[in-house]
Amino acid sequence: MAAAYGCAVSSSPTLRYEHGTLVLLDQRLLPGARRELRCTTAAEAAEAIRSMAVRGAPAIGVAAAHGVAVAGRAAAVAGGGPSEVRGAAEDACALLETARPTAVNLAGAIHRMRLALMRDAGLISGAEVAAVLEAEAAELERFEVDACAAMGRHGAELLGDNARVLVHCNAGSLATPGIGTALAPIYEAHARGTLDVVFVDETRPRLQGSRLTAYELGEAGIPHLVIVDSLAATLMLHGAVDAVLVGADRIAANGDVANKVGTYALAVACAHHGLPFYVVAPTTTVDPACETGADIPIEERDPAEVLEIAGERVAPALTRALNPAFDVTPASLVTALVTERGVASPVTSSTIEGLVRR
Amino acid sequence: MAAAYGCAVSSSPTLRYEHGTLVLLDQRLLPGARRELRCTTAAEAAEAIRSMAVRGAPAIGVAAAHGVAVAGRAAAVAGGGPSEVRGAAEDACALLETARPTAVNLAGAIHRMRLALMRDAGLISGAEVAAVLEAEAAELERFEVDACAAMGRHGAELLGDNARVLVHCNAGSLATPGIGTALAPIYEAHARGTLDVVFVDETRPRLQGSRLTAYELGEAGIPHLVIVDSLAATLMLHGAVDAVLVGADRIAANGDVANKVGTYALAVACAHHGLPFYVVAPTTTVDPACETGADIPIEERDPAEVLEIAGERVAPALTRALNPAFDVTPASLVTALVTERGVASPVTSSTIEGLVRR
Repeated sequence: MAAAYGCAVSSSPTLRYEHGTLVLLDQRLLPGARRELRCTTAAEAAEAIRSMAVRGAPAIGVAAAHGVAVAGRAAAVAGGGPSEVRGAAEDACALLETARPTAVNLAGAIHRMRLALMRDAGLISGAEVAAVLEAEAAELERFEVDACAAMGRHGAELLGDNARVLVHCNAGSLATPGIGTALAPIYEAHARGTLDVVFVDETRPRLQGSRLTAYELGEAGIPHLVIVDSLAATLMLHGAVDAVLVGADRIAANGDVANKVGTYALAVACAHHGLPFYVVAPTTTVDPACETGADIPIEERDPAEVLEIAGERVAPALTRALNPAFDVTPASLVTALVTERGVASPVTSSTIEGLVRR
Repeated sequence: MAAAYGCAVSSSPTLRYEHGTLVLLDQRLLPGARRELRCTTAAEAAEAIRSMAVRGAPAIGVAAAHGVAVAGRAAAVAGGGPSEVRGAAEDACALLETARPTAVNLAGAIHRMRLALMRDAGLISGAEVAAVLEAEAAELERFEVDACAAMGRHGAELLGDNARVLVHCNAGSLATPGIGTALAPIYEAHARGTLDVVFVDETRPRLQGSRLTAYELGEAGIPHLVIVDSLAATLMLHGAVDAVLVGADRIAANGDVANKVGTYALAVACAHHGLPFYVVAPTTTVDPACETGADIPIEERDPAEVLEIAGERVAPALTRALNPAFDVTPASLVTALVTERGVASPVTSSTIEGLVRR
């Protein structure tokens, strides 16, 4: 068990585990304010995920894993033995796994933490069990950091020179512990000098594009322009876009992709204009238990996210709204799936299996 | 000259001409507050159009016509003779015609007022000239009111039973002096008992859907659900939408349609899903001087409309945005054009000419 007590493993501004505490950059306040949220219980970590203080499929998964470690470490510090620490960790798993339904990385991370608990059943102290949990969460985080870098390299190969790329939502360093999923090839292309400009969908209703993607691209000095989501198709018509890159919250075995609402409309527009539509996601986002996209649970969020602006009602009092946070894009509309292990194209059950099983 | 001094001709809540004053419902405050704006000069009318206190192509046209009448009447009341009143009206035309660039109804209304001034060159008193202008504006308003009703009847014929219709922006009673363009068939279908539900695109950046369309559908007791613009394609994929109805700000001679940004994306999505995409607009929206959509001037509005929410900056300080208020949909994606004179389908130069020249 290499992990020392409360080891910190990352320099991600998005999340880090530090001496029994999960420290998150509160993304609800960006870009206006940079405030850290310190979670010292699994319940706090679950609430941070639920309220979207931390968001993005890989970041949610890693935060949840650390959230289990937080609970285990607290039980050990309180003098708990192996069974108390295991119990606290199991309670944390149960609490965290239901925080949000769509991103499979959350379920995957919890599954991984449960396997770690089972694997190390012979440990004799609570502190040892807590250290196992910390090491496991740290390993998941390292995996995701490396996966981001690899996706960046694979994805950048697909983009040509002077690439003009359109992105939706935020799938960058704020959505992962690394350089992102869909934004990773953009960072890589920028470093290689092959990027021209990034069109950033504002991404209603929560504006992850104009708030978060614009923030991190601005920090990185990458040229970008924000647009309303509904302008994307027109930019394609005018020949202003070379490719669309999006992340994913869950990918079914057949390659259907659940991602932020609005993703499907972009895929349709790409098909209409003959443009490549790339999904960039680590293999941890593939869920073999979902045969097709129809099996993916889609989170319905509070209609107030649509009907209110800055806490003020804009729609009439009796008007209702639909507010699914995600949509599902059929595999047939995805030009290529870029993972840390390489690129699947066309996107089919067998090309995906080829990557995941490798 | 039938028109009496300061005659009022309409019962529209959106706009009315009343004793030398143009009275507008200030749509920037809806649905939160119903406040009237009283324009007693052409400059005030132009500013109301520019700031979108009144908006919607037919409403802009009628408001501009009344704005010219306001100026003429004021000059007459001030004791001006025919040439003073004509001069004031010509100045008003010059001021009003540039208030917004895309809706051709504005240019068309001003052209009409100028023709009226030329036609009645033999009048001997300022009051007579002012009355001519008032009558001309009133006649345009009556035309648009009747056109709305006719579009409602023609459009409702295209919708089946239990129609589930998706609309974008606001093309209803708030956008016209009548029952609307794209909303007219919806009001008519509702009256006939053939309407199921209306999906209302919120319509970023100015939210004419969630603010205005939801408001007037709610007032009329018509079932509706607001969605973010980017959800529309997914509703189509799920078979929840039977048809899309939109208005238009300018229609080129070949049938290309300029309308609120986001319209083109809906047309593409309809094509992908094999759904009818109907444009509903009076023949006053056709501009024979524009051969194709490429000739239509597209208004670029303040990027702050995208980058700020309720006056607060949401995007980073250095981030820029594109904010065209309109886009152009090629005629080939328009299933039918519904006008007050009937339906053009397919939409081509010759089917449009057939309606306009009739």
